[in-house]
Amino acid sequence: MPENENKLRNVCVDCHTILYENPKNIVGLLPFYKDEVLLCQRAIEPRYSYWTLPAGFMELGETLEEGALREAKEEIGIDAKLKELFCIYQLPEIGQCYFVFLAELENKRFQLGCETLAAKWVKLDKIVYEEIAFTSIVFTLQKYQEWILQGKKQALPFNEVYKHN
Amino acid sequence: MPENENKLRNVCVDCHTILYENPKNIVGLLPFYKDEVLLCQRAIEPRYSYWTLPAGFMELGETLEEGALREAKEEIGIDAKLKELFCIYQLPEIGQCYFVFLAELENKRFQLGCETLAAKWVKLDKIVYEEIAFTSIVFTLQKYQEWILQGKKQALPFNEVYKHN
Repeated sequence: MPENENKLRNVCVDCHTILYENPKNIVGLLPFYKDEVLLCQRAIEPRYSYWTLPAGFMELGETLEEGALREAKEEIGIDAKLKELFCIYQLPEIGQCYFVFLAELENKRFQLGCETLAAKWVKLDKIVYEEIAFTSIVFTLQKYQEWILQGKKQALPFNEVYKHN
Repeated sequence: MPENENKLRNVCVDCHTILYENPKNIVGLLPFYKDEVLLCQRAIEPRYSYWTLPAGFMELGETLEEGALREAKEEIGIDAKLKELFCIYQLPEIGQCYFVFLAELENKRFQLGCETLAAKWVKLDKIVYEEIAFTSIVFTLQKYQEWILQGKKQALPFNEVYKHN
């Protein structure tokens, strides 16, 4: 328990530096083209061979948006233009926050990255939720489906995200 | 450079565990009562004696909202009810993301925490921006002022944030 703190922390026994551990952001996107979304099949654990959206840990030096675009490029070879921040899905018990952006694509091309076994375009009512890798992705896809069914009326998207110059 | 990675990482020379370093979230709120906002004077470095909003690093095990409420309680002794996520302000060059929620208070009471020298209620047009501690806080206050002046018409707030059950 460091001085002036009220939490147990990892402290170096030699130099007394505190190693703070904080929640991590996972950034991704929901690629859509007309009435289909692009799902990726995982080539890595956890949840090998289950389906997901392109997403991964945000890295130092990038914004939420830049991280989402990097993951999309790495995992499925798409150059997307981001639209709104569509949802924030938090898993405090494992210290993770998901940030998913909408990304409308101009065509259906993709290219598999080394973390992706396969990819497919799927209509919303044809998604098999039992095959989706994570609850965060199930949640995002279901919210998207609801939002489309409601005629995109609900003010779900947070449409301005700011970056320090 | 660990196997299957494309970035330099800190790796333990003994057990080869990778120490991932990722951006950190700073969570805070903008407390308002009628046409005034509550500013806090910092009792700690950096920016000792400059003015700020209650905010701090998000901790493991909490959501963005819970972190913002905890900081408000610790720094200025208020029990706020959060309204919208008002803005996201990113500083990728130092690996920080600010998330600021609006918080309408029911009265003007507060209680100074140990990281706060003083606090004051200020009308928006009386804020002295030269005395504000961080660009993130200047940005938030200016956006809030614009938003009020525009009659809160712009769809700035992202008004649904989801938590895993």
